[in-house]
Amino acid sequence: MKNKNILVVGSLAFDSISSPAGKAEQVLGGSANYFSIAASFYTPVQIVGVVGEDFPKDHLNWLSSRKIDVSGVKIAEGKTFHWVGSYDQNLNEAKTLSTALNVFATFDPKLDQQHRETPYIFLANIDPVLQESVLDQIKSPALVAADSMNFWITGKPAEFKKILNRIDILSINEGESALLSGERNIVKAAKIIRAMGPKVVVIKRGEYGSILLTDTGFFVAPAYPTETVADPTGAGDSFAGAFMGFLAEAGAHRDMAKTDPARWEDLLKRAVLAGSVMASFTVEDFSIRRLARLETAELVSRQKKLIEMITI
Amino acid sequence: MKNKNILVVGSLAFDSISSPAGKAEQVLGGSANYFSIAASFYTPVQIVGVVGEDFPKDHLNWLSSRKIDVSGVKIAEGKTFHWVGSYDQNLNEAKTLSTALNVFATFDPKLDQQHRETPYIFLANIDPVLQESVLDQIKSPALVAADSMNFWITGKPAEFKKILNRIDILSINEGESALLSGERNIVKAAKIIRAMGPKVVVIKRGEYGSILLTDTGFFVAPAYPTETVADPTGAGDSFAGAFMGFLAEAGAHRDMAKTDPARWEDLLKRAVLAGSVMASFTVEDFSIRRLARLETAELVSRQKKLIEMITI
Repeated sequence: MKNKNILVVGSLAFDSISSPAGKAEQVLGGSANYFSIAASFYTPVQIVGVVGEDFPKDHLNWLSSRKIDVSGVKIAEGKTFHWVGSYDQNLNEAKTLSTALNVFATFDPKLDQQHRETPYIFLANIDPVLQESVLDQIKSPALVAADSMNFWITGKPAEFKKILNRIDILSINEGESALLSGERNIVKAAKIIRAMGPKVVVIKRGEYGSILLTDTGFFVAPAYPTETVADPTGAGDSFAGAFMGFLAEAGAHRDMAKTDPARWEDLLKRAVLAGSVMASFTVEDFSIRRLARLETAELVSRQKKLIEMITI
Repeated sequence: MKNKNILVVGSLAFDSISSPAGKAEQVLGGSANYFSIAASFYTPVQIVGVVGEDFPKDHLNWLSSRKIDVSGVKIAEGKTFHWVGSYDQNLNEAKTLSTALNVFATFDPKLDQQHRETPYIFLANIDPVLQESVLDQIKSPALVAADSMNFWITGKPAEFKKILNRIDILSINEGESALLSGERNIVKAAKIIRAMGPKVVVIKRGEYGSILLTDTGFFVAPAYPTETVADPTGAGDSFAGAFMGFLAEAGAHRDMAKTDPARWEDLLKRAVLAGSVMASFTVEDFSIRRLARLETAELVSRQKKLIEMITI
């Protein structure tokens, strides 16, 4: 059987969140957490990351029980990464109140042999130097995607631009795309970013969906319109998880753009919709709670409904 | 030949606009102006409205030359309605700096015999008392749609609710839908508004597209992603013009929801896309300039592209 595993490098974290729907203190979060749970609906996932001694073993065990390989998660002396944020009525944008890197400050990912052979790679929003270090250790990736954030785009622009030249897909949000491209118009921004390296650009717009730019042009996808938005944290990471999971499960490969462009385009569009659907569940409850109780049947049903909602 | 005419009651106005793209002083605007030009690409239009003696006859003649009937436009003593507004980097929301109703303050629409027989009616954003007065004069409409704005939703809620019970389609923007429904979530808001009367609700979200709620559920349409946004003024009205024009040209009828629901739903979806496409042209230049030089071939080409962008 062909290896369809995804390796994600990113954070396992504690989040403290307030939103119009309520508060959640010191709950489970982190990009690799959301990403891996979402992706695991589609394909096996391996996390590379670091937690402090205060991180619940139960949660690592629970991830393992979902066939998420946590052998690459280092337990380091000290405290786990902690993010404190809030959302006002405009649920599309988080306000960061504090970020304590803790054990993440000295994180230096070393991949074992098995992890180096993973075909699908997702470099979640971390220091581009670490993203590069992980990428250097991968033998022959089938597909590499990355995310980032304002902090790194502004703080380490040269390092991040190196990453852009080595990835197939960049997935970022609209504000980040404006910062990275210097252009607020999303169509122009996507084109500018694509010229920086990644053949595929996905720009996420929260409740307004996302746009995908490929060789052949734009695909515009709505978010799944959900009635319940409790906590948007992790929406982007679970979008990316389902997106990559879908592509990996389908056996997408970077060469496909040339060898089978029609299938490549079709898979990318469906992957974006899979991302929309996953994110729509994530936001329905705080932390990873909704994803933790999500059933595959719900996922399939909502994916079908979303396609109906955009079909003429 | 079956009568496919649209009657629009609304404003012909002067606008003074500033946006990041520049300024335009005392240029042609008004809901009926944008609406009728947009709709005239699909079907004949009749405007009911009022202008002051300062309104250029040349423009009325130009509208006539496009088969837009301006015999229902009264030229009253005094000055034409004048709106002053500005847009910041967030082009989705206009800031109203001043509104001079002028001749609109005493407008009392009286329809002649021919206008009373018009099958397709669009009540643009004016006092709901005037909207009702027009509706009272219509003999047997095939389809009635309306727009409104915060000023009337807040200022004349009882009058506006009467209108909601008499129209088939309400087309408003996202901020207005939140105000009208008391609900910021767009899915809940659309359902609440639909329960107030109109069988079809269209909520416009500027560059993020629109959602349509009908008997059978939601259709989510993107805006056409355009690289040039000079002036968003009139985007909503030209969206409505193309939307209604498309429905009128196709012979849509309020009874169709029962007699031919599949065709009804299909026409509504395509009408929304026609609206998106028209609005994408409107915003490319100040005032009605882009619409004035728009060719049907451009419209057809962009409509085709938009459908490609959402097709999987």
